[in-house]
Amino acid sequence: MDISHRKISRVVNFTDEQGNAVKNAHISVKQKNHEFLFGCGGFDFIPYVMSNGEKNKAVADSWLEIFNYATLPFYWGGYETKEGEPNKDTLMKTASFLKDKGVTVKGHPLCWHTGCADWLMNYDNATILDKQLKRIDREVIGFKGVIDMWDVINEVVIMPIFDKYDNAITRICKEKGRVGLIKAVFDRAHAANPDAVLLLNDFNTSINYEILIDGCLNAGVPISAIGIQSHQHQGYWGSEKVYEVLERFSHFGLPIHFTENTLISGDIMPAHIVDLNDWQVDEWPSTPEGEERQAREIEEMYRILFENPLVKAITTWDFKDGAWLKAPSGYLRLDDSRKPSFEMLKKLVKEEWWTDTEVVTDSEGKAKVDAFKGDYCIECAGKKADIRLTDDDCDTIILK
Amino acid sequence: MDISHRKISRVVNFTDEQGNAVKNAHISVKQKNHEFLFGCGGFDFIPYVMSNGEKNKAVADSWLEIFNYATLPFYWGGYETKEGEPNKDTLMKTASFLKDKGVTVKGHPLCWHTGCADWLMNYDNATILDKQLKRIDREVIGFKGVIDMWDVINEVVIMPIFDKYDNAITRICKEKGRVGLIKAVFDRAHAANPDAVLLLNDFNTSINYEILIDGCLNAGVPISAIGIQSHQHQGYWGSEKVYEVLERFSHFGLPIHFTENTLISGDIMPAHIVDLNDWQVDEWPSTPEGEERQAREIEEMYRILFENPLVKAITTWDFKDGAWLKAPSGYLRLDDSRKPSFEMLKKLVKEEWWTDTEVVTDSEGKAKVDAFKGDYCIECAGKKADIRLTDDDCDTIILK
Repeated sequence: MDISHRKISRVVNFTDEQGNAVKNAHISVKQKNHEFLFGCGGFDFIPYVMSNGEKNKAVADSWLEIFNYATLPFYWGGYETKEGEPNKDTLMKTASFLKDKGVTVKGHPLCWHTGCADWLMNYDNATILDKQLKRIDREVIGFKGVIDMWDVINEVVIMPIFDKYDNAITRICKEKGRVGLIKAVFDRAHAANPDAVLLLNDFNTSINYEILIDGCLNAGVPISAIGIQSHQHQGYWGSEKVYEVLERFSHFGLPIHFTENTLISGDIMPAHIVDLNDWQVDEWPSTPEGEERQAREIEEMYRILFENPLVKAITTWDFKDGAWLKAPSGYLRLDDSRKPSFEMLKKLVKEEWWTDTEVVTDSEGKAKVDAFKGDYCIECAGKKADIRLTDDDCDTIILK
Repeated sequence: MDISHRKISRVVNFTDEQGNAVKNAHISVKQKNHEFLFGCGGFDFIPYVMSNGEKNKAVADSWLEIFNYATLPFYWGGYETKEGEPNKDTLMKTASFLKDKGVTVKGHPLCWHTGCADWLMNYDNATILDKQLKRIDREVIGFKGVIDMWDVINEVVIMPIFDKYDNAITRICKEKGRVGLIKAVFDRAHAANPDAVLLLNDFNTSINYEILIDGCLNAGVPISAIGIQSHQHQGYWGSEKVYEVLERFSHFGLPIHFTENTLISGDIMPAHIVDLNDWQVDEWPSTPEGEERQAREIEEMYRILFENPLVKAITTWDFKDGAWLKAPSGYLRLDDSRKPSFEMLKKLVKEEWWTDTEVVTDSEGKAKVDAFKGDYCIECAGKKADIRLTDDDCDTIILK
């Protein structure tokens, strides 16, 4: 397994503020954050932040021990239950809290047929589209600087043929076509924040999604990254499928985000269920054997994904059991205790793939640095530098 | 069943060359050709024409009794067995013969992974693409005026993942992506003959093909018409699927051509066969019951397609049994005798959907004309007009 592309490995010049070489010195190189986005659903931070830390404290503290990347919910139906009254304050406070903790926040999603606002259906299609585009302006501009990453549109493969219930977005997707709607919402989001990372996201990993992406790219849709959902309530894909999906979506050359990963620690959902939402149970227990299996499967999958240079983010969907579908899908049990998967992933992210070391400069103030890409605090004799070590960095570090 | 859109129905002024109204006169209105393209494979015309009518005479004569539209083979491997020696003369003679008979000719196909030239695999991908584009120039420009309709690229849904054998076109499709290759070949064909009718053609009628077309149109690919194959060796789709396919491919608003229709008059190929080419039999007899069924199914399908305003062409793939897969897929049996399907289709095309009538002008030289769109000979007392009656026509007919 070659993960050298996740690291920098080069000779660095260490100097003081006057430009003098820091010779023959022991220098501590401590990682503060990953360049790679290790993500998880951040929904639990909303009650935590809004209660000033009284609710969900154990959850929030555990979460922050591993992750540097959170997905926050912008489902239109929940975000703007009544037209004209968006829940901006709550989301802004939560996103700002996370940002202050060094966590990158992604808004999910700007356009989706599920969880959509019912009041939109009172309008004709032209008005629905206009309101959709204005919502994109409002959120993307309104959160700029706090949230600069968006799932722009979700699950478009099924969108125009979704027939479980009538909704405003299926109506306009049927009229404009898939690529037409994708182009409209991406163009608007890109105009609203040209620096934002904009994702297309889908659970459909078949040839349908490949062809859709192919069409979008040829139509000039400004997709920053391909979002792939991998809810595996019906059992782990296995390494073969993980590699196969990676191969099929790699040929576009775009960054790939595993946006919604789920591996559960209980009984597997029966294979005959097509829409996961159709599986409604009263309880879905986590089991000791399930927890061992979950940890093993998450480890294998994360290792495969971390090795692929195009993968830039992996987000586990639920941090704690009992959320979507009541599944045992989290790193924490219902009582907030940590599963084996938590300890395993923390070890990967904060030990095996983490740099906390010391280098010794030579007589010219040079030392070779081998370090996982990310943010660092470099220190020597009370002087320090807070820097980011990535491919683009300069080769001199000034200690102040 | 409303087929009024297939007809013109309007009051026409009949005049002589001096502009005088042709009053109170009996005027014969005889159809010579359809605007609608009733097509069939025209491969059998090649030996007919090249033998100066000695071979295949019965086949050619029967064919011309019904059809006004022929598909001719331009499979690269057969058309240019040895690089630099295209079989242009044969195809030009055959196409010109058909054109002189009032038959519209379509070339099939300019780009396809099957039937491709093996010698192309001696080149690297950039060279293969260059040769593919130059071949498009050569054929589209070389046949302009004789063939102005092309299946530009065939079966792209499967093209980059086709793995039965290595071939030059799958190689370049894998590299450029589906939409990228489609755009390259269509742009080239359109530049070579801006007036040509250019088709995308596929046997895959699933959501894959819908998404592919959607992407192509948003990427500006100059597709004139959507080509849908409907080889039904494994049994008639049934009206429900025919309507369903029409509905799903109608929302683009583009003309639809049923490019390769097959309904057989013998035993049905087993459903488990995925690639029809895998069904290899020594003989595949036509049966009396099969022939009745074939005629019924063709009639139902043609009626449904003729009713849909977007359908502009229907091509039966084999005119005579024993061609592709040795199937009993024709209107003629192996001994050149006509099946019930031949008589049925001829009745539809040349009687029920055909106009051969007389109108009587009033005292101002006006008469209402109700006629299937197409080419006509209008005659009155030894004077006549050869005209085309379609939506765009003027309302005055001058008899000379």
